[in-house]
Amino acid sequence: MTIKVHGIPGSTCVARVLLCLQEKGLEYDIVQLDVMAGEQKQQPYLSINPFGQIPAFEDGDVSLFESRAINKYLANKYKDVGTNLLQSASFLESTVIDLWMEVESQQFNPPMSTIIKQTLVNPIFGKPTDQKIVETELAKLGEVLDVYEERLSKNKYLAGEHYTLADLHHIPYLVYFMKSPRATVVTSRPHVSAWWDTISSRPGTVKVSSEMKF
Amino acid sequence: MTIKVHGIPGSTCVARVLLCLQEKGLEYDIVQLDVMAGEQKQQPYLSINPFGQIPAFEDGDVSLFESRAINKYLANKYKDVGTNLLQSASFLESTVIDLWMEVESQQFNPPMSTIIKQTLVNPIFGKPTDQKIVETELAKLGEVLDVYEERLSKNKYLAGEHYTLADLHHIPYLVYFMKSPRATVVTSRPHVSAWWDTISSRPGTVKVSSEMKF
Repeated sequence: MTIKVHGIPGSTCVARVLLCLQEKGLEYDIVQLDVMAGEQKQQPYLSINPFGQIPAFEDGDVSLFESRAINKYLANKYKDVGTNLLQSASFLESTVIDLWMEVESQQFNPPMSTIIKQTLVNPIFGKPTDQKIVETELAKLGEVLDVYEERLSKNKYLAGEHYTLADLHHIPYLVYFMKSPRATVVTSRPHVSAWWDTISSRPGTVKVSSEMKF
Repeated sequence: MTIKVHGIPGSTCVARVLLCLQEKGLEYDIVQLDVMAGEQKQQPYLSINPFGQIPAFEDGDVSLFESRAINKYLANKYKDVGTNLLQSASFLESTVIDLWMEVESQQFNPPMSTIIKQTLVNPIFGKPTDQKIVETELAKLGEVLDVYEERLSKNKYLAGEHYTLADLHHIPYLVYFMKSPRATVVTSRPHVSAWWDTISSRPGTVKVSSEMKF
């Protein structure tokens, strides 16, 4: 039984799961959907992701959605395969991974997803980019990355000395963001920039990001 | 050593942690901050929450932030005390709790937090309420609650038969939302409404919500 990921490789949330599968060295099939035609908003797709979003995920009898929850499942279920993405030597270290996964979800993702939506997604759908929103969210992102800069000046990775889901979850949006003129928000912060160089050059990241196109 | 929660009881993110502490029956002190004066944006507070937000949390030597990460810590560290908020009989049940915690974080929280910010927070700071944003986010919230309605027609709680963090994390924003004229978005959906009646009448919820005021 091969793992199935429903979606398209250019989607940031799909890519988040593919990055995890690559780190694990697990085989998977991508079940492509016609997203532009709204296939994800119709049955039978809604029976595996009731929110009508990509990805949806199947591993034998297990059917899941929400990229970060899928990755936690993969990291725990296949703990001894490939990269240990929740590596911790104690309950406290495990808590620190949870904490930095929450930071990605609550601090980094809201401004970053808005910037990408405004600058990359809106034009595809013929909608204008609201530059005022972009500037506001870039300022918020800069403040978040100031905290990362301090954190990464003392730790190689966000949760400590190991590459974990807390780092991996940041990659998909950064793949697009780093190709934009605004990448200086990252490159102007030496430790954040070095962290990005490290995590973006992992073989799994190189493979998944090479297929990320709008 | 008593647990310390830095913040104010009216903050939704602080209340999220207090709800968990109440379910656990743990003693705690609330260390009040002058949020209106921006005390949370200054040292020494920034040393315990570098993002300058409330809450921050201390349990002996353990110092944390991000309400959902704090609650996972509490639920795991004090698993055998009070309500088991991550109760599962299998790895798959545990995965389902993670999934519905992610749904709260990624589907419910974005529209709900925007609605509360526009309708309750903005007026306090003398900012106008943008009714167009409110209507857009109310429509998104309604679509999310349609999925909840289906889910709760088959399960007493979001993750299944037990009250978990996946339910608890929804409570703080709903406490304010249910006092507003827009509460019909919840009450018009019978299973969501019954779920709210159940989780809002828990003794811990009654205690924490009685102290939630702007």
